[in-house]
Amino acid sequence: MARVVVDVMLKPEILDPQGKAVQGALPRLGFAGISDVRQGKRFELEVDGELTDERLAEVHEIAEKLLSNPVIEDFSVYVEEFADDEDDEQ
Amino acid sequence: MARVVVDVMLKPEILDPQGKAVQGALPRLGFAGISDVRQGKRFELEVDGELTDERLAEVHEIAEKLLSNPVIEDFSVYVEEFADDEDDEQ
Repeated sequence: MARVVVDVMLKPEILDPQGKAVQGALPRLGFAGISDVRQGKRFELEVDGELTDERLAEVHEIAEKLLSNPVIEDFSVYVEEFADDEDDEQ
Repeated sequence: MARVVVDVMLKPEILDPQGKAVQGALPRLGFAGISDVRQGKRFELEVDGELTDERLAEVHEIAEKLLSNPVIEDFSVYVEEFADDEDDEQ
């Protein structure tokens, strides 16, 4: 079992109103020096069994066909081993 | 200048209907063997100047106060150097 992460971000040339809204809020909240914010999506997929090249190619296909819109978005796929949980504890 | 990434995911004990919808669609589209899908947010922040520990602490504060809801979400902050652009080209 492995965790595969798919990050989906708007292409650089596409306007990102969500990111701009966050960026606009920062100075009002007292944070300076952030020159750009982009907001995208992160998907965590738990893949059963051994993660072969074939399975990884399948995840690529899922990312392209289901998780992203290739007209306006770029995606990247990477493997995050199952035992690791790198989330910060709150 | 540095790019700092903030990943925001629902805590594991919080139901994720968006992820479940994606997971439910996979078998219908011919993809088997994905046992769970979680959907979250990814923010890319361009930080001006040198990325000191102080600036990074500020990004942590932004992540906690503005980008996530600590009641239901976990976040993680990591630095992605500016020169690198690891997005897959479509």
